[in-house]
Amino acid sequence: MQLFYTPDITDSPIYYLSEEESKHCIRVLRLELADHVQLIDGRGGLYEAEIVDAHPKKVALKLLTRELEYAKRNHYLHIAVAPTKNIERLEWFLEKATEIGIDEITLINCQRSERKEAKAERLNKIITAAIKQSLKAYHPKLNDITPLQKLIAQPFDGQKFIAHCEPGDKQDLSKTLKPNSRYLILIGPEGDFTPKEIEDALQNGFEPITLGNSRLRTETAALEACFEINFLNR
Amino acid sequence: MQLFYTPDITDSPIYYLSEEESKHCIRVLRLELADHVQLIDGRGGLYEAEIVDAHPKKVALKLLTRELEYAKRNHYLHIAVAPTKNIERLEWFLEKATEIGIDEITLINCQRSERKEAKAERLNKIITAAIKQSLKAYHPKLNDITPLQKLIAQPFDGQKFIAHCEPGDKQDLSKTLKPNSRYLILIGPEGDFTPKEIEDALQNGFEPITLGNSRLRTETAALEACFEINFLNR
Repeated sequence: MQLFYTPDITDSPIYYLSEEESKHCIRVLRLELADHVQLIDGRGGLYEAEIVDAHPKKVALKLLTRELEYAKRNHYLHIAVAPTKNIERLEWFLEKATEIGIDEITLINCQRSERKEAKAERLNKIITAAIKQSLKAYHPKLNDITPLQKLIAQPFDGQKFIAHCEPGDKQDLSKTLKPNSRYLILIGPEGDFTPKEIEDALQNGFEPITLGNSRLRTETAALEACFEINFLNR
Repeated sequence: MQLFYTPDITDSPIYYLSEEESKHCIRVLRLELADHVQLIDGRGGLYEAEIVDAHPKKVALKLLTRELEYAKRNHYLHIAVAPTKNIERLEWFLEKATEIGIDEITLINCQRSERKEAKAERLNKIITAAIKQSLKAYHPKLNDITPLQKLIAQPFDGQKFIAHCEPGDKQDLSKTLKPNSRYLILIGPEGDFTPKEIEDALQNGFEPITLGNSRLRTETAALEACFEINFLNR
């Protein structure tokens, strides 16, 4: 069954697709009157609907069933990562993290960041495509580039971690994680966080963690963190 | 320090770079007499060497130190995966799996495979670049497209697993894995293995496993398996 992302859906029994989605539905997917489709609203709602008007500019869908909190996650994961110089690597991370499971991503501006700007709207489309492909009813939140200092100073209710490559005591997540909780993990640029950035994080309650013994690219480290959190909460 | 991949290195105290590598060394990297470089031989050897002749067509390196079994892995992982229609996705998997840790990859031809051919030489270059970037002294082995039936029937000394989406009993790797062992994991195409392919695998001693509750793309499932095996062996 074809799936549409419909964040503006309401309680109304009839939902109208946008002009763009209607054209896609009728001209490209070639759906017809009485065909059934699935809708996700990005807030946990998964719907099944029937086409009751196959107008190529304004498809009318009659909502048949609604499942709230579809496949709701049992923990909250926020990864703050320095955007990569090659934007495709960051896009790859967003797609894979969405498939595996993530709630929020913030792009952080660090001293050694290779990229200072990123088009959040375009990156958000990657995430939207990934939730449709992997049938996730919750749309991860993507926050635009934020200075590291600002993010570190913000309150966060949960466990806070920083992954870095400087010498020093670091724990495995398997040793320090509290399951079914909320987590914020900082992943630095290819050149790593500076000693001062690490010190600031530690002073703001971030625990230093290791993601294994391998030398990982930024986007690989970010995905490793995502994988570990999900795996330890299975 | 710059790193070169030199699989043809021997016990000889002087090693000569190929014409291509020499040109890269002198003209592109602009290295000079007395500069030090690192070499990896793909079989566990990590060397430090000094340039004793900076000839742009035949650089001579004097080997200074050699470390055998550099960062030797504590388990053996072979992932057999159906190549993806979009070859870039397979390339991403090869790069990330090499960063995280893998020993052998086989491309398998399944009934529902979206891609029946792949250029192994080009894919191997991705792996080589990844071992250089992530400082791995062992070069994972890549096997060309093999019919699934043939791979399933081959003897394999270790635990064998098949990840599939059909209904049925499946274990988490965390429950069934024996650490520090040898593992072969089958990852199917986007349309999954057929029931007969699964049955054949089970009859050949493959245990059915789950890689979590999310619907994963082929390359994501392959990397998830890679993550889990490495994580459980940490």
